[in-house]
Amino acid sequence: MTNTPKSEIVQHSQNPNPETRTIKVAFQGELGAFSEDAVRKLLGADACPLPCRAFEEVFEAVIENKAAFAVAPIENSLAGSVHKNYDLLLTHDLTIVGETSLRIIHSLIAPEGVRFEDLKRVYSHPVALAQCERFLRTHPQIEASAVYDTAGSVKMVVENGQRDEAGIAGASAAKTYGANILMEGIEDNPKNFTRFLLLTKPERRDGFLQSAGPAYREGARKTSLVFRIGNKPGVLFRALGVFALRDIDLLKIESRPIEGRPWEYSFYVDLTGDAAEPNVERALGHLGEMTESMKVLGSYGSI
Amino acid sequence: MTNTPKSEIVQHSQNPNPETRTIKVAFQGELGAFSEDAVRKLLGADACPLPCRAFEEVFEAVIENKAAFAVAPIENSLAGSVHKNYDLLLTHDLTIVGETSLRIIHSLIAPEGVRFEDLKRVYSHPVALAQCERFLRTHPQIEASAVYDTAGSVKMVVENGQRDEAGIAGASAAKTYGANILMEGIEDNPKNFTRFLLLTKPERRDGFLQSAGPAYREGARKTSLVFRIGNKPGVLFRALGVFALRDIDLLKIESRPIEGRPWEYSFYVDLTGDAAEPNVERALGHLGEMTESMKVLGSYGSI
Repeated sequence: MTNTPKSEIVQHSQNPNPETRTIKVAFQGELGAFSEDAVRKLLGADACPLPCRAFEEVFEAVIENKAAFAVAPIENSLAGSVHKNYDLLLTHDLTIVGETSLRIIHSLIAPEGVRFEDLKRVYSHPVALAQCERFLRTHPQIEASAVYDTAGSVKMVVENGQRDEAGIAGASAAKTYGANILMEGIEDNPKNFTRFLLLTKPERRDGFLQSAGPAYREGARKTSLVFRIGNKPGVLFRALGVFALRDIDLLKIESRPIEGRPWEYSFYVDLTGDAAEPNVERALGHLGEMTESMKVLGSYGSI
Repeated sequence: MTNTPKSEIVQHSQNPNPETRTIKVAFQGELGAFSEDAVRKLLGADACPLPCRAFEEVFEAVIENKAAFAVAPIENSLAGSVHKNYDLLLTHDLTIVGETSLRIIHSLIAPEGVRFEDLKRVYSHPVALAQCERFLRTHPQIEASAVYDTAGSVKMVVENGQRDEAGIAGASAAKTYGANILMEGIEDNPKNFTRFLLLTKPERRDGFLQSAGPAYREGARKTSLVFRIGNKPGVLFRALGVFALRDIDLLKIESRPIEGRPWEYSFYVDLTGDAAEPNVERALGHLGEMTESMKVLGSYGSI
């Protein structure tokens, strides 16, 4: 490490001034959200999470230099892709520099002193409520209400101060708002994971990779890209062929509508390998020959 | 037509008893919803729409013989696929017998006598509100609130009887609830279409096609199917190859997560041709050789 140029981030973590020591990282939701857990896992305890109301604001925060990084959920193993973030990857010039996956454990969280048998109402994000359907069905005395955020539901019940309300969120929300976990792991399906992307401006990428831990540089790498092809027979097959002919494995394919062109799509693909590897580079060149447009969203490691 | 066996539906439309004359068709939403417009377009004025609260109930209504058909939105040209309905196609044994596409025109609809300049609040489904963002931004004095349904928002403002509220929905909702259209076409993007599927039980299919209008039998046909492949390199490419090698065009590909198998997917494909055509039949046989499971969701015409 001694020969690599010190990046902005290494300098920050050596700076004794706490105002500038930490790296600002934008995420959607309230403090204590699963996305904040992902921020810690991706960037360590030094990261300074910047809560944003909407996914657009998360991307804008990095574009406008209010944050150095963004952490955004892209896919849940039960609910599927977070399409809004796929759309934002296309419209904002950020690059993916890492990813991680978190087990989603939903907990029933109530203000200090509230007991399970007192509960009459529970709040959470609609997706979290849907993932705890069995728990809600077996406790019909507790009425479920949808709110905008998991951690936000805990913040709200603590602020409300009612003695018969709880939120459903990750354990971090209990710690953040000084509340109690009444029950842990109330989700129906334990194979519940969310994949998060770490995003930054393209010009920060090299400095980040030099200063980041070895997990970001070593091990298997992935590349994500998005392309559009004309509405010609067989063209999607030929497009995917550029990878198959070079033994590059496709991990995921996702389609999203193109605004103003009904029933035409952008295709998002995740594949094994780094865009800097010669065979991936050649495959991307080959793909470029047959697509209307193509954008590499990043090559990155899994943390 | 004289030699074809009379189907249940033909008998219904010849039955003079109005109680049994009409065909029950399940759809999600309130009366006056875009889905009800799709019911009329697909099955004519004789169809008796059966409003359901949730998409599950729409599918269940046909399984439990409460309705002969279901009409379900599968895709919007701006918002993308309706993933819930893709999931329900996999878990319910219904077959697609037709499809249609409707231009989505959002109107501002208020109770009789309410004027535009009186409005302080407007209600609609979150997707409809998002599609009328420009209108809402240029009228900041009108506060937008999300409700569960477009037509339901009109029903609600008529029932509330407030003099400063309106809903955003299709023109049919105004007619259904005796309300006034204050402004038509307030959506940001006029290239806003929703594709609806007509579904029934497999055993009703042949009778329906014999009694239905010629548009259901003539013209270009489509086949929809869903398959799962193992997590082996190159297998998606080979799977799509069974169509490309036979000049069968892929119209759409969509992936959905498999519950309990994180980061594995079911693939939904729409292709040109009928599953009964020899080359499509052979392609499906070929696909069956390399997939873990495969289900043909239906072959159908566009109305």
